[in-house]
Amino acid sequence: MSETKGRVTIPTDLDVIPETLKMLDEWGADAIRDCDGTEFPAELKKTGAKIYATYYTTRKDNAWAKAHPEEIQQMYIMTSFHTAVSDTLEIHLMDHLYPDMLAVNTRDDIRRWWEVIDRTTGEAVSTEEWSYDENKGNVVIRPAKEFHEYTVSFLAYIMWDPVHMYNAVVNDWKDVEPQITFDVRQPATRAHSMDRLRRFLDSHDYVNVVRFTTFFHQFTLIFDEMAREKYVDWFGYSASVSPYILKQFEQEVGYKFRPEFIIDQGYMNNTYRIPSKEFKDFQAFQRREVAKLAKEMVDIVHEYGKEAMMFMGDHWIGMEPFMDEFASIGLDAVVGSVGNGATLRLFSDIKHVKYTEGRFLPYFFPDTFHEGGDPVKEAKVNWVTARRAILRSPIQRIGYGGYLKLALEFPDFVQYIKEVCQEFRVLYDNIQGTTPYCVKRVAVLNCWGKMRSWGNHMVHHAIYYKQNYSYFGIIEALSGAPFDVSFISFDDIRQDKDLLNDFDVIINVGDADTAQSGGENWADPKILTAVRKFVYNGGGFIGVGEPAAHQWQGKFFQLDDILGVEEERGFNLNTDKYNWEEHKEHFILKDTDGTVDFGEGKKNIFALPDTKILIQKDQEVQMAVKTFGKGRGVYISGLPYSFCNSRILYRAVLWSAAAENELFCWFSSNYNVEVHAYVKNKKYCVVNNTYEPQDTTVYTGDGKSFDLHLEANEIRWYQI
Amino acid sequence: MSETKGRVTIPTDLDVIPETLKMLDEWGADAIRDCDGTEFPAELKKTGAKIYATYYTTRKDNAWAKAHPEEIQQMYIMTSFHTAVSDTLEIHLMDHLYPDMLAVNTRDDIRRWWEVIDRTTGEAVSTEEWSYDENKGNVVIRPAKEFHEYTVSFLAYIMWDPVHMYNAVVNDWKDVEPQITFDVRQPATRAHSMDRLRRFLDSHDYVNVVRFTTFFHQFTLIFDEMAREKYVDWFGYSASVSPYILKQFEQEVGYKFRPEFIIDQGYMNNTYRIPSKEFKDFQAFQRREVAKLAKEMVDIVHEYGKEAMMFMGDHWIGMEPFMDEFASIGLDAVVGSVGNGATLRLFSDIKHVKYTEGRFLPYFFPDTFHEGGDPVKEAKVNWVTARRAILRSPIQRIGYGGYLKLALEFPDFVQYIKEVCQEFRVLYDNIQGTTPYCVKRVAVLNCWGKMRSWGNHMVHHAIYYKQNYSYFGIIEALSGAPFDVSFISFDDIRQDKDLLNDFDVIINVGDADTAQSGGENWADPKILTAVRKFVYNGGGFIGVGEPAAHQWQGKFFQLDDILGVEEERGFNLNTDKYNWEEHKEHFILKDTDGTVDFGEGKKNIFALPDTKILIQKDQEVQMAVKTFGKGRGVYISGLPYSFCNSRILYRAVLWSAAAENELFCWFSSNYNVEVHAYVKNKKYCVVNNTYEPQDTTVYTGDGKSFDLHLEANEIRWYQI
Repeated sequence: MSETKGRVTIPTDLDVIPETLKMLDEWGADAIRDCDGTEFPAELKKTGAKIYATYYTTRKDNAWAKAHPEEIQQMYIMTSFHTAVSDTLEIHLMDHLYPDMLAVNTRDDIRRWWEVIDRTTGEAVSTEEWSYDENKGNVVIRPAKEFHEYTVSFLAYIMWDPVHMYNAVVNDWKDVEPQITFDVRQPATRAHSMDRLRRFLDSHDYVNVVRFTTFFHQFTLIFDEMAREKYVDWFGYSASVSPYILKQFEQEVGYKFRPEFIIDQGYMNNTYRIPSKEFKDFQAFQRREVAKLAKEMVDIVHEYGKEAMMFMGDHWIGMEPFMDEFASIGLDAVVGSVGNGATLRLFSDIKHVKYTEGRFLPYFFPDTFHEGGDPVKEAKVNWVTARRAILRSPIQRIGYGGYLKLALEFPDFVQYIKEVCQEFRVLYDNIQGTTPYCVKRVAVLNCWGKMRSWGNHMVHHAIYYKQNYSYFGIIEALSGAPFDVSFISFDDIRQDKDLLNDFDVIINVGDADTAQSGGENWADPKILTAVRKFVYNGGGFIGVGEPAAHQWQGKFFQLDDILGVEEERGFNLNTDKYNWEEHKEHFILKDTDGTVDFGEGKKNIFALPDTKILIQKDQEVQMAVKTFGKGRGVYISGLPYSFCNSRILYRAVLWSAAAENELFCWFSSNYNVEVHAYVKNKKYCVVNNTYEPQDTTVYTGDGKSFDLHLEANEIRWYQI
Repeated sequence: MSETKGRVTIPTDLDVIPETLKMLDEWGADAIRDCDGTEFPAELKKTGAKIYATYYTTRKDNAWAKAHPEEIQQMYIMTSFHTAVSDTLEIHLMDHLYPDMLAVNTRDDIRRWWEVIDRTTGEAVSTEEWSYDENKGNVVIRPAKEFHEYTVSFLAYIMWDPVHMYNAVVNDWKDVEPQITFDVRQPATRAHSMDRLRRFLDSHDYVNVVRFTTFFHQFTLIFDEMAREKYVDWFGYSASVSPYILKQFEQEVGYKFRPEFIIDQGYMNNTYRIPSKEFKDFQAFQRREVAKLAKEMVDIVHEYGKEAMMFMGDHWIGMEPFMDEFASIGLDAVVGSVGNGATLRLFSDIKHVKYTEGRFLPYFFPDTFHEGGDPVKEAKVNWVTARRAILRSPIQRIGYGGYLKLALEFPDFVQYIKEVCQEFRVLYDNIQGTTPYCVKRVAVLNCWGKMRSWGNHMVHHAIYYKQNYSYFGIIEALSGAPFDVSFISFDDIRQDKDLLNDFDVIINVGDADTAQSGGENWADPKILTAVRKFVYNGGGFIGVGEPAAHQWQGKFFQLDDILGVEEERGFNLNTDKYNWEEHKEHFILKDTDGTVDFGEGKKNIFALPDTKILIQKDQEVQMAVKTFGKGRGVYISGLPYSFCNSRILYRAVLWSAAAENELFCWFSSNYNVEVHAYVKNKKYCVVNNTYEPQDTTVYTGDGKSFDLHLEANEIRWYQI
């Protein structure tokens, strides 16, 4: 029998003191927290529950920021493209930027830290040929070349913390003073920040857990003149810069910094860009420096006998929890926002902390908790979606955020969360301390490798994008699938030619010439031969979208010999194509009716003569398989997340690894239901991922089976 | 009143002598011809009609070919890709090639003229590291690098002329001896061929017109082991090679020839490939040499007082009728096969000949003329489709080919052709000697320029391809539109910076990084600034598909400032996009119901903030417009040929040239009907392009209008 209390954190505020006590009991919560925009009530200091305090390392101290304007954080921004139509071109830097958020930095030497680029030639414009008119806020280029396009890369101070601004706009906070973001990395602020943290700890002895929100650098988030989101990159480093930091970077790497290292033609090194050496150097430098400084703060927290917890979001840039530096920080815990299975594993897979905690949706904010809102539905989707991933890589705690008052107005919601909390505690008891049964070892291969584990095809956390949901579906499916999943990079293969021996199946998913699929890495003989050898000797390769695609030596799909397909880009029209027959009777499609939702799919894919097409639409191949030596390749044009598609991927992995006979092991005949086994703990569960009852046949590890009826969302535990 | 006889050529054969005489009368034909597989009957030598004799320069003389095997024509072939899985790799050269068609050339030094390429590195394999096992027909590579891919480029003799083989297969000719293709360029065959031509002329004094089919080099056409078409390129030069020719080429250009110049990674320099300098050099060399030799033959024909006519097809490679060398040949006429409007203009636009003649479909072959066949329908579609183009760029004669006997079994067909012949004669009388009214000067910009005039997005003459019909539609629409159309290349702009002043509107149509759209030319400041300047000063730019697209300096669509759209390839997902509103009330869409058939269209196109979207589907822009200085840009995702789309293009040209007020001039309100004016001849016609009656309002050149009813396909002539 599991505990009925514990492992749950709830928010509080000054106006819900008795209600907080009630909910501690009702939900079995054992921790209480404040939030951005709420205060912790003195009356709740002695409830016996652990107390979390949000701590803002880089904001909520405008007095300091205003006294030290030179240590306000900065970000690199590139203007839009401007065409010169005479010999003089003026570019207004703050066009289409929210005026209260950013202030152009003219304090530092603009000729050193800004860059004007002729985007028609790709060359930087000599600093002799441009100047800044501070009154107008314009960079003036003279002489400009007629009909060339120019951009200006410049530094701006962050005068309104982007997350504070976001919260203020979403919650319609009135008369709130914009919180300035100061830079803890710089000397005066660094000393001040350590004092400030100590003062906070001195004055908050009732606090058990200091929840850093987060550390030092905000992911890239910019608003336009109408306060709408203009640019967002949850992984973006462009707001982690300042001349102070960049000079250190130059010293460490031994070459001169250029703004273009960060600006990257305006693409800002987003996760789809194949990272340059300079950007990888910069990230590594930031990781080391951020880890050092974070450790200093964590040590202080420990000095006071408290736990240090990191919220994974907001100012998390440089922390990089999957990289080696992270362990050195000594954090006790990480809490992350749960959008879906993949976002859960962004933090549940973190090593070197005592526990991880999931902040579930919906936040108790008025955007969901209003008349006519359906928070139960949102909570159910969030929980059921994430549960698959928790069953593969458990978190140790769950919790909620926002205004508790709002949630209490929805009794159905309160009841549902009560059930979730108890379900989580049971689950926790059954699976902790063991590795769930993994049928195959799967490696997702891209340019980022482990640093962006589970972050593939993510732009702004769990936000939908038309151009990537058909790829992200693979990552989401993997987040709850019984595989041992690794994320590896092309550099990893170059550094260790035997690396691929550790895996059964490689997956490459994305559009051509992106960091996700790999671009020019597929013109590197080291990569090509390593992957071909791996497959030839019996490995599986699953390519989704434009896998291994880069125009080189007569091919676009470099692994057409393994995948059996190529993309028609006009260059192969002269070649007659006779292979169009579909073979729907295939192991991979066995649980479908022969149709598959490929999402956006891909156009213009054709099969080579020896390929077996599983599905084509109007002579555009959507799914195909091929053998290569002892190994097998599978091509899929896209695979948005669904229970059916998750099953298709599962079967594709087994087929590509020539392991069809391992199917009926911890398996459910109905793909809406999944089976997870924890052999060491002698437990297994059968879980209904849908919001309707399901019937299935369950296969256990010994191949035996039984029929089962599950209620909507039900999870049922068994002893092995 | 027009003549009722003349301007028509019909085929004959030994078995249709009286019928030929009858048809000369019935169709008003004034010329008779033989065909491949038919004989000219002696009885018809004195009918008064002109007599055409097909003459095969490079075949129908196996005795000679067999006696001079070293002068049989050759072609470069690349094997498929082969992966080395040990240190030895054997590649069988003749795999998947029709065995009777090609014979590997080992007579010439294979180490000089073949090339084995490591396609994983892109490097040629040293000739020390491969050999040819003639017994097995295999190239043996040793040592091969494990898991590298290799190809072999080799020379093969053409032992069965590809067109002869095609005719034999299609018509199911039995026991036909394959005709070998010999090379008139080589010394012995050259001398022999001139003699042979004289002998032919000596023995065919009844012949008036020698119809060369064609000259020396066949466009690329290869059949697979099942005698199916394997590879076809109507513009392909790979069958115009031999060591004899290539050594001359080396001497002329002063650098060493490499097979890769022709092989081009296996893409064989097809028209979608951005041509290399070496390939352009080779084409220029061939043009000069082919023209010299063709002139020699034409001169002989003239010596005999006969006309020399070139069939534009089959062995036409190197003739290049739109290039300067062509004029020097002195041909009297060109006859071309009519597939549609664009294929008609492939020869109707040829200068420097006395007349051009169109060979209309259907050929009198059993594939159409069989029980249940509908030759009238085919003839109608062919005639009506081509008529638009004839009205813009007239031919002087029409004609038919094949077995007359087959046609005669279809009296409806005989009657329809009779009408067509008379309609053509009237049309000819009305439009000869003048230029039809052109509302705007339009330039189609690509890598090929005038050499491939009207051949854009053509692979095998008028054959449909899923990947290009949405682009070819533009060319087909232009073939019958009242514009002065030019085809210009990027080199033309580089050579003459004022070139664009000659035009009102530039069109760029195709997929990214193809020769049709231009690829890396769009990273050339000379091109970018010339085009921007042209538009800024009032020009129009219409981009279709992925116009001006090449990844460079933060953009994929280099002219996004003119077109107002960019393609999402993952790199811009971080940028919020708010411009999705459609503006269907626009001049360009005025004659539509707001929907447009974009054919394959394009995915992932988004609009910049200042762009006016005309049509988007699921947040993918299909049509948009933007102003740039005094000029205007129009983006269209694709525009297959239809009467409605032709009208859309017409309006797009007018709008982009800021000439909306010129619409109602020689104009039909109903887009199924077109108006063409021949001001110098004081004639104009109104033509119904559909197979149903149509009502319209006709606007004449002075802006006056009248209502008109036209019968199906009707053309009606008026005096101005």
